Amino acid sequence: MRTIEWDDGVVKMIDQRKLPREFVIVQFTDHREVARAIKEMYIRGAPAIGAAAAFGLALCARSSKAKSPAELLADLEQAADTLLKTRPTAVNLPWALGRMLEVARKTEYTEAEQIANALVAEAQRIADEDVEINKRMAAQGAELIEDGYNVLTHCNTGSLATVDYGTALGVIRTAHEQGKRIHVWVDETRPRLQGARLTAWELMRYGIPMTLIADNAAGHLMRTGQVDIVLVGADRVAANGDVANKIGTYKLAVLAQENGVPFYSVCPTSTVDLSLPSGDQITIEERDPAEVTHVGGVGIAPEGVPVYNPAFDVTPHRYITGIVTEEGIITPPFAPGLRRAKALV
Amino acid sequence: MRTIEWDDGVVKMIDQRKLPREFVIVQFTDHREVARAIKEMYIRGAPAIGAAAAFGLALCARSSKAKSPAELLADLEQAADTLLKTRPTAVNLPWALGRMLEVARKTEYTEAEQIANALVAEAQRIADEDVEINKRMAAQGAELIEDGYNVLTHCNTGSLATVDYGTALGVIRTAHEQGKRIHVWVDETRPRLQGARLTAWELMRYGIPMTLIADNAAGHLMRTGQVDIVLVGADRVAANGDVANKIGTYKLAVLAQENGVPFYSVCPTSTVDLSLPSGDQITIEERDPAEVTHVGGVGIAPEGVPVYNPAFDVTPHRYITGIVTEEGIITPPFAPGLRRAKALV
Repeated sequence: MRTIEWDDGVVKMIDQRKLPREFVIVQFTDHREVARAIKEMYIRGAPAIGAAAAFGLALCARSSKAKSPAELLADLEQAADTLLKTRPTAVNLPWALGRMLEVARKTEYTEAEQIANALVAEAQRIADEDVEINKRMAAQGAELIEDGYNVLTHCNTGSLATVDYGTALGVIRTAHEQGKRIHVWVDETRPRLQGARLTAWELMRYGIPMTLIADNAAGHLMRTGQVDIVLVGADRVAANGDVANKIGTYKLAVLAQENGVPFYSVCPTSTVDLSLPSGDQITIEERDPAEVTHVGGVGIAPEGVPVYNPAFDVTPHRYITGIVTEEGIITPPFAPGLRRAKALV
Repeated sequence: MRTIEWDDGVVKMIDQRKLPREFVIVQFTDHREVARAIKEMYIRGAPAIGAAAAFGLALCARSSKAKSPAELLADLEQAADTLLKTRPTAVNLPWALGRMLEVARKTEYTEAEQIANALVAEAQRIADEDVEINKRMAAQGAELIEDGYNVLTHCNTGSLATVDYGTALGVIRTAHEQGKRIHVWVDETRPRLQGARLTAWELMRYGIPMTLIADNAAGHLMRTGQVDIVLVGADRVAANGDVANKIGTYKLAVLAQENGVPFYSVCPTSTVDLSLPSGDQITIEERDPAEVTHVGGVGIAPEGVPVYNPAFDVTPHRYITGIVTEEGIITPPFAPGLRRAKALV
């Protein structure tokens, strides 16, 4: 199944917090439940949470008791606000909500139900487009991967981070499906271990050769010539090409440049935020200290220890070899390339 | 108490695997038990395992049934071999064993018991010297730390990594005791979490302000100007100044250089191995995949996942601002400085 699906008024999603131990599908009929699921990371990954927010708004439209388009719009705006406030860094969340509200505001609708139908259709379109876009990105990015390559990746950018197929992991999948003999180094990705829990699980299911490492080992692998390319996703790309992505990404980009290893971010144009001149303006989410002090419910640090837990970092564009989008691979200077790619969508 | 102590024919050590949950002292009377304790990391840290190996050899000397110096020497050489094979990277292990065997081989001894007495005294001397050397190093290194500094450190280099006081953490302690207002960023240090478990515990006991981070956050902190100096220990320093230390150290050194942050390794001259021209010749220990796949007994990755788990990496000397030893702070070019420091001992 897809990471998230709409099924006759019910939003179904995989509870990713339980993977790889348990494969559990959860069902929601209220947008506030979807908001909680985003916040608590039942679902994560920039494209996936964009789609989740869209389906959340569709749920609100379906369940609202509003009698007029104006009343429904008020409900939707409140629901969008709730969904927006769940996580601050990935721009796909405001992007998807903005797209949904734009549909809701169309003046052609005279009945609330028309709007609800349109929103369900739009959310479905966002989800379907995501899969199609990922496959286009993957085809572009796969050209960067040669037979015999060792690819290093961070966090989870696969099916689970999107509606289906994946961004950086989609590229890896396509290269593998093209018959290229590749091997993937998977960063475990502390603190939430999306690499160990989700990426390792996906790659093993696809039969793609992989090896799990502690994040600390990535530099050693690059320095000793065991990495040919680094592929990561993105949560928000600023107009100048600075990339916000999972904490630890910046370190990989610096190490890659230092060791002459190409470093690519793979993301749909919906992740590009031209309203921000640079990565300095991107809000970095700070999450619960318990993500650092506890693993699988087990405490690993002294009680009461102070913790700083930023969920993302910003990689300045000068460390980035290229940004792979569904509209092509953008190389420096990034600003004109990103503007062109956004204009094409 | 000290991390390791000799008490009338018994070697006592803190079982560091159980910290910070439990403070347990274990006792050994057989050198093979000490070897197992080193291998399984009851005790760890280059200076501490040097002292542990020395006490292990003292136990062998005390319990041996040898009737002549020659018979005892044969027993000791076998025991030294067992102790040496426990862990390959830290040079303090062969250094301490070599120093003990040199004492045992002195031709002045005519009775096995004389040798045993001499070895107990020598092991005690190695332990006492370690504490004294750490305090000298700490005094030198503390001059690098200014009031208000944010210090970033990796792994555990405190009392627990040595016989007492510590290397990099000894420097931090001394700066704090000098009244400098400092704050320490503590890398959790996956996979074995010595930072989260041991360094955080030590710093909290000393009342030194600190914050625990996932290793992935270190680069973000440096890029955003929140780190004034990086201090780490060392497990082996080659003749050219290349430093082998806990996995993830190399990454910190590259990030520090990229962000104009000074990077120092703090270690006694016993950690310097002039027999190796460069870090390329240092053996990097690979440890059990379970260190990556399990945390506190809880599985965090799919069953059967392939893992690569190097315990150390090599930081080329060009990334290192200086090496703090008990004989002074050595700066580039390192080769003559390291030779001079070793000659002084």
